[in-house]
Amino acid sequence: MTPICYYDTHRIAFDEPIISFSDRAVFFGDAVYDACLVKNRMPYLLDPHLDRFYTGCKALGINPKKNRDELSSLIFSLCNDITSEIAFLYFQASRSAPTRRHFAEKEDESHLLIFITEMKIPQREQCLSLIIQRDCRYELCNLKTTNLLPAVLASTRAKEAGADEAVFVREGKITECAHSNISILKNGTLYTHPKGPHILPGIARERLLLTCKALQIPVLEQPFSVKELLQADEILVTSTTKLCQRARMLMGRPIGMKDEMRANSIQSAIFLHFNNCDIAQ
Amino acid sequence: MTPICYYDTHRIAFDEPIISFSDRAVFFGDAVYDACLVKNRMPYLLDPHLDRFYTGCKALGINPKKNRDELSSLIFSLCNDITSEIAFLYFQASRSAPTRRHFAEKEDESHLLIFITEMKIPQREQCLSLIIQRDCRYELCNLKTTNLLPAVLASTRAKEAGADEAVFVREGKITECAHSNISILKNGTLYTHPKGPHILPGIARERLLLTCKALQIPVLEQPFSVKELLQADEILVTSTTKLCQRARMLMGRPIGMKDEMRANSIQSAIFLHFNNCDIAQ
Repeated sequence: MTPICYYDTHRIAFDEPIISFSDRAVFFGDAVYDACLVKNRMPYLLDPHLDRFYTGCKALGINPKKNRDELSSLIFSLCNDITSEIAFLYFQASRSAPTRRHFAEKEDESHLLIFITEMKIPQREQCLSLIIQRDCRYELCNLKTTNLLPAVLASTRAKEAGADEAVFVREGKITECAHSNISILKNGTLYTHPKGPHILPGIARERLLLTCKALQIPVLEQPFSVKELLQADEILVTSTTKLCQRARMLMGRPIGMKDEMRANSIQSAIFLHFNNCDIAQ
Repeated sequence: MTPICYYDTHRIAFDEPIISFSDRAVFFGDAVYDACLVKNRMPYLLDPHLDRFYTGCKALGINPKKNRDELSSLIFSLCNDITSEIAFLYFQASRSAPTRRHFAEKEDESHLLIFITEMKIPQREQCLSLIIQRDCRYELCNLKTTNLLPAVLASTRAKEAGADEAVFVREGKITECAHSNISILKNGTLYTHPKGPHILPGIARERLLLTCKALQIPVLEQPFSVKELLQADEILVTSTTKLCQRARMLMGRPIGMKDEMRANSIQSAIFLHFNNCDIAQ
C-alpha cells in the first residue's frame, strides 16, 4: 500500500516537498508525536496514545492544530483508505516561527503531520537479539518527542551488529530499549523500570502490566541491573509495533527463555487483545 | 534583508514547502548543523565552524551532500547576495530514508540546508540577565545536532522570566548556557567547564581562551559551582552571535561586574578580532 501522508491541511506523498524551514521540527526537534497500530482500519488503543500525545504537547507548550475530537475524526477518516490488514499510524505536532530562534512563544502556530504505512503482523514467535548501549539520553524520556538521536545511534549499532534492539543502561540499571520498553520475569515476578524521566510510559508496557495483574503475576516497578537481566528467566520487550516479544540473546550470549509457561500466558493474552481489537472496540 | 534559504540544490523562500517526510531531521532530529556570523559578506571563523560540522557528520555517520571545498564555495557564493553589514549563516546536514525507521544506513542520501539572515551587530555593552535551569540534556552536547528541545524549553523559560539566557546546572556544576558557553573570572583567573560530552566546544569559547592566553590571564578548564558563579568577579557569556558579553544578573540578583578592567581587555580584543575579520582574512 502507498503510505498515507498528511500535513496541516491535505494529503501529500511521502517524498513530496511540503515542510518549510519555519517548522521548528527541522531546526530544533521541537515536536511531539505518537504512533499506534491499526488493524482492519481500526486504530488499536488510540485513546491512551492520544492521552500521551496531548500530555506531551502541553508539557512543551505546543498548542495543537486540532483538538482531540478533530484529530480523532481525521485519523479515522484517513484510516478508511488503508488497504492492508495491519498499518502503522504516526501523528506529530510541531510549531512554526517566522525565523530561527531558540525560544518558543504561545502564539506560535502549530503543524500537524500524519503518516500511515503498511506493517507486517507483529510476530509473537520472534525472539529478539539485543545489544547493550550506554543510556546517554536526556531526562525527558517520558515525553515522546523527535529528539531521538541517541535512539537512532543505538538502533544503527544494533542493526550493524545483526541484533534487533539496543538496551540502554544508565548507572548500572536497565532503563528501556532504543524504541521499546523492557521487563524481566524472575521467579514468577515481573520487574520493570518505574515510570519517570528515564523511560517512555509505553502503552504496550501498560498493557503488559495489566495482563500480569489479570494473570496474577506479581509486578514490581523497580530498576534491574545488567546482571539481573543476564540471570532473568524471561526478558519481555514491549512496544507499539512488537506488542510483546521475548529476547533470547544479549551481545551474542543466550539469555532468558527459561519460563516459557508464563511468557506464553502473557503473550497469548496480549496478542489476543490485539487480534480482537477490531471486533471488541 | 530577505533571508537567503537554500535546500539541496536551489534557493527557496523561508516559508516555502521544500522538505519532505523523508528528511530524517523531521522524525528524529537526525541532523548536524553549524552557524557563524558574516561581516560584509565574509564568514567569520568559517574554518573552525566547518571543522566542527564535518566532525559532527562523521560522529553521526552522515555522509554530507557536499565536501568541504564545495560547501565552502557555495557558502561564499550565497554570502555574495547578503545586503546587510552583519548576517547569521546556518548550515545543516541531515539524511533521508525511504520510510520512517530508527536505524540509519551508510547508503542514506543526505540533505543540505543553508539559511542566512540579517543580524544586529553584537553589542559589547549589553550585560546579560540569566536564569538557572537543571541540565537534563543528553551526553552528546559536544555535537551540534538539532536535538535541541532542552535548549528550547530553557530559552523559553528565560524569555518568559525577562532574562537573556538560561544557565544549565548538572550535579551542582555549571556546564554551559542554553545557546552559549559561560566562564567566570575570579581573582584574575578564568574558569570554564572543560570540553567533553556536557558542553559544546564553542568557537567563541576557544577565541576567549586564546584571548586570555594572549593577555596573560591564567585559564583553568575546570567546572565551577553555582556558589562560585554567584561569587565570581565577572561572568563572561560567549557564543557565535554574542561573541563575548558580561552577565550582571542571576535569577534577579546582581552578580559579577567586579573586574571591569580584565573584562574590558578581553572584550576589546575579541570584538576587535571580529571587527577586523573582513579586512584580515
